[in-house]
Amino acid sequence: MSGIGCRVTAETRNPKPETFMLIVQKFGGTSVADTNRIKNVAKRVKSEVDLGNQVVVVVSAMSGVTDQLIGYINSVSGEVRGAMQDAEYDSVVSSGEQVTSGLLALALMEMDIPARSWLGWQLGIKTDDTYTKARIETIDVKAIRKSLKKGEVVVVPGFQGVNEEGRITTLGRGGSDTTAVALAAALDADRCDIYTDVDGVYTTDPNLVPKARKLQKVGYEEMLEMASLGAKVLQTRSVEMGMKHGVRLQVRTSFSDEPGTLLVEEEEVMERRLITGITYSKNDAQVTLTKVKNAPGVAAKIFGPLADAEINVDMIVQNISEDGEKTDITFTLAKTDLKNAVAALEKAGKKDIKFKSLLTDTDVVKVSVVGVGMRSHAGLAQKMFQTLADNNINILVISTSEIKISVLIKAKYLELALRSLHTAYGLDKKE
Amino acid sequence: MSGIGCRVTAETRNPKPETFMLIVQKFGGTSVADTNRIKNVAKRVKSEVDLGNQVVVVVSAMSGVTDQLIGYINSVSGEVRGAMQDAEYDSVVSSGEQVTSGLLALALMEMDIPARSWLGWQLGIKTDDTYTKARIETIDVKAIRKSLKKGEVVVVPGFQGVNEEGRITTLGRGGSDTTAVALAAALDADRCDIYTDVDGVYTTDPNLVPKARKLQKVGYEEMLEMASLGAKVLQTRSVEMGMKHGVRLQVRTSFSDEPGTLLVEEEEVMERRLITGITYSKNDAQVTLTKVKNAPGVAAKIFGPLADAEINVDMIVQNISEDGEKTDITFTLAKTDLKNAVAALEKAGKKDIKFKSLLTDTDVVKVSVVGVGMRSHAGLAQKMFQTLADNNINILVISTSEIKISVLIKAKYLELALRSLHTAYGLDKKE
Repeated sequence: MSGIGCRVTAETRNPKPETFMLIVQKFGGTSVADTNRIKNVAKRVKSEVDLGNQVVVVVSAMSGVTDQLIGYINSVSGEVRGAMQDAEYDSVVSSGEQVTSGLLALALMEMDIPARSWLGWQLGIKTDDTYTKARIETIDVKAIRKSLKKGEVVVVPGFQGVNEEGRITTLGRGGSDTTAVALAAALDADRCDIYTDVDGVYTTDPNLVPKARKLQKVGYEEMLEMASLGAKVLQTRSVEMGMKHGVRLQVRTSFSDEPGTLLVEEEEVMERRLITGITYSKNDAQVTLTKVKNAPGVAAKIFGPLADAEINVDMIVQNISEDGEKTDITFTLAKTDLKNAVAALEKAGKKDIKFKSLLTDTDVVKVSVVGVGMRSHAGLAQKMFQTLADNNINILVISTSEIKISVLIKAKYLELALRSLHTAYGLDKKE
Repeated sequence: MSGIGCRVTAETRNPKPETFMLIVQKFGGTSVADTNRIKNVAKRVKSEVDLGNQVVVVVSAMSGVTDQLIGYINSVSGEVRGAMQDAEYDSVVSSGEQVTSGLLALALMEMDIPARSWLGWQLGIKTDDTYTKARIETIDVKAIRKSLKKGEVVVVPGFQGVNEEGRITTLGRGGSDTTAVALAAALDADRCDIYTDVDGVYTTDPNLVPKARKLQKVGYEEMLEMASLGAKVLQTRSVEMGMKHGVRLQVRTSFSDEPGTLLVEEEEVMERRLITGITYSKNDAQVTLTKVKNAPGVAAKIFGPLADAEINVDMIVQNISEDGEKTDITFTLAKTDLKNAVAALEKAGKKDIKFKSLLTDTDVVKVSVVGVGMRSHAGLAQKMFQTLADNNINILVISTSEIKISVLIKAKYLELALRSLHTAYGLDKKE
């Protein structure tokens, strides 16, 4: 213990790292659901402080509070709202995080940890003017640095900022994640830990596939695909921001000490694998128009009315029928949009497009295989098709992108498809 | 309709006053208890707007919200709190009024009345540093004037301000009243209407004395005495501030259109009367020390230990006993302080003061007659003593000040005392 470069001090028994880290931690609604859980969060913050690290904590509202506030708003205000109304909406709903941040600062002080909460306007989290879904433009980190230097834990309510006019804005869905990642980027933090309901990112849904494994690391782009495909661990926007600024994001749970999943640059994913995970979505419906005239401009005629109705179409397949003149067109869209889509298509069918029949199916799921290995390795798609064929699962629609393949199948095959694909791609947990 | 000085315009059918007024309205917790009541408040604001008046509205938190927030604070934080803790306390509890102000602005806009909420820090309601009971130092009214000029109703959360460091402060008990009166003073408003549970100030408690009358006007100083004696209509602090700045305060209820009671300068109280009201308090306890040595310094020896224990003593009577050497000392204090007071006195009794016995009585009430007439008219006190004597009510302790006389009596005589005094001083309602 006295070799070169080894400092022997009174602290030897409780060794501290020579270089301390700056950690941003974010705790979601269920982690701060009540005052007992807030005390639990304080303990978690303390464990980083005890390591000698500087800590910035971002908190959501206590679970249920935001919904309650929105309920109040809906009962005094009509559905049509302009910017003046949205500004009041933001001022009201931002109060939820304000409460949690003060309570956490108090819980920390109760444990003799110097702490202080800073509201969005006090920190200078400057956003644009888009109330209810504002975007962070700049963060002035001077106050935070000063507070950290004084040895304080900096507690920040997520989801809120202030615009140029000096009014409170909120960041929309997943806004607290965005606050955390933006702060981590602005402070050049060593790590940004997002504490959620789940303890990390899995190769697939562990509720359906017992052999699902928690990933130690996952690339930003893979995470983005998985998030957009239904793995609701992190909002797309915060992943994008993390990727852009190279923030080392970790997804973990406040209910255990287990390390979670780290989001990193592609080349940093050590255990190199071709496929990272298999996700699914139950939110899609399938629509088929049969015997459409196969002529230039027909796709525009079909999808134009849907776009006008603000309906997003996801997967699209066009089959040429025997005679070459007529074609069947199949596509998927959100189940919640199906009714409006059918109405729009039937209306259009009376003038612009001619089709024989309009078929819909909501008893379908989309299964996607995601992995950066697809960029360099052929045959990965073929393995999916072969595996599904071996299990007698019929593929209804296929779509692909750079790092994912998605197929639409009958809903009853979901579990079978996930398990067999999980095994086929070598993702199963080692015993 | 065409005489000199009478402008005939298109507005003749809906005549508006030539000079519009600037009104500050304040609505307490029960007036904004839920979203339906908030909509009701919006209607009340609208009726002033419809008269062509400019309106600034101050709101409390929805009833129960502040207590809930304090409950959260108490469960994460210990009882001993310093300034850092108090700052978090203020940030947390101020959120209650923030919510109400946003909701009221929305309810007003829903009725097509331009409105906007301003938080304490947005308005520049600058206070000192005393978290949890801060005092307003300055209000920058530029933003309010600009907003009013644009035709907006200005909605302000009561109870909150911001200190020099830029942290949120709160104003302590009755803080929303203080905000309203301070705004009225800073804006030189024509009137400040305080909407409360009761519809005005009464000559005495109408629940105990059916003949109690609502006062149309009452002087500030009389109101101060009545407030400090238990008539909990307005906090002492806001009455003082109103008096200092000559704010025309009106106490009224949001549940009816009846005019309330106007607080005015003494000389403006038109219906001149000698006695304004009769109040009572059930919060006092009586303490008697018998056979204390009658020597210089004995009072200091008795009341010193009580002051050290932060116990306020109210009425004090010293009776010389026959021999002139020993005396009985009787005084009153808050019932909640009695236990601590007895402990402090018994401790002091073992060394500094000698007394024969320590007697306590909590079955007592303090009845007070208040009126500026006492300044100029003798015999008003005598009328009180005579009336109580006529009803066989024994007076335990007497104390007087410039405009009030208080007596301590047995609790069972309260109703009899109030009714007979009310009649004796000519306060009974005319049929």
